[in-house]
Amino acid sequence: MAETTLLVSKIKDGTVIDHITGGHALDVVKILGITGRTNGTVLIAMHVPSKRLGWKDIVKVEGRELEPGEVDKIALLAPHASINIIRNYKVADKKRVKLPSIIKGTVKCGNPACISNSNEPVQSRFYVKSEDPLMIRCHYCGYIMEKQGILKQF
Amino acid sequence: MAETTLLVSKIKDGTVIDHITGGHALDVVKILGITGRTNGTVLIAMHVPSKRLGWKDIVKVEGRELEPGEVDKIALLAPHASINIIRNYKVADKKRVKLPSIIKGTVKCGNPACISNSNEPVQSRFYVKSEDPLMIRCHYCGYIMEKQGILKQF
Repeated sequence: MAETTLLVSKIKDGTVIDHITGGHALDVVKILGITGRTNGTVLIAMHVPSKRLGWKDIVKVEGRELEPGEVDKIALLAPHASINIIRNYKVADKKRVKLPSIIKGTVKCGNPACISNSNEPVQSRFYVKSEDPLMIRCHYCGYIMEKQGILKQF
Repeated sequence: MAETTLLVSKIKDGTVIDHITGGHALDVVKILGITGRTNGTVLIAMHVPSKRLGWKDIVKVEGRELEPGEVDKIALLAPHASINIIRNYKVADKKRVKLPSIIKGTVKCGNPACISNSNEPVQSRFYVKSEDPLMIRCHYCGYIMEKQGILKQF
């Protein structure tokens, strides 16, 4: 009895997030709010071989395209990811996520005393000091955030 | 540009959990303690068509077989699941999970005053009153547990 190869069929409309940094597929799933309890096929592949990255993860979601805020979050933890928008069974748009040098509004500063956590109308703002391992520094208070602390917010 | 079908290759050794009740793949992943940060390919397919169930989920894990305690937990939330053990690219064993009529030790009673939650050496024990929706009743205090409360423990 040979194990059958699992073939996951094409989707009509949706998004394929490819080249996710290995180990981060479930974080991407969390960012996208996927519980699997709604309609639409979702495919998650973890730790698959990649020419570019060695190992990568892939998330494929039927029936939705990503919001800019979701793409910004994905960029933080999977800066090499590529996003393919599928419409009517074809790749309608393909782009790489890009980690900007300044992160505005996406991450909350981990320092409770930071002015960006006060009632003042101040948007959070971080400078990317290092992409891998991820390290960002708060513009206002200098607090350093790393990947684990950021992931907890998503 | 046509979207390529995502083909997930065979695994040498591991487990395929098929016919998971639709919407429960991520619960199975949690039960198995899969974070995706370790070696070994993991594939998760959610909301795929099934002749038997209408819609089903599938989880495929390379490099491990399941512990009996894990199978007992899966049986509670996906009582129709089948488990295929793969060894050397072949299905070496295939079984359906089975929800027993009495659940011993797998679930903690939700009633804090229950004797099974005391320091007494009493193993928890529940009777299955309904499989779908899942409803189990504590042998000791009569407390009824449903799927959501059970899932929180896993």
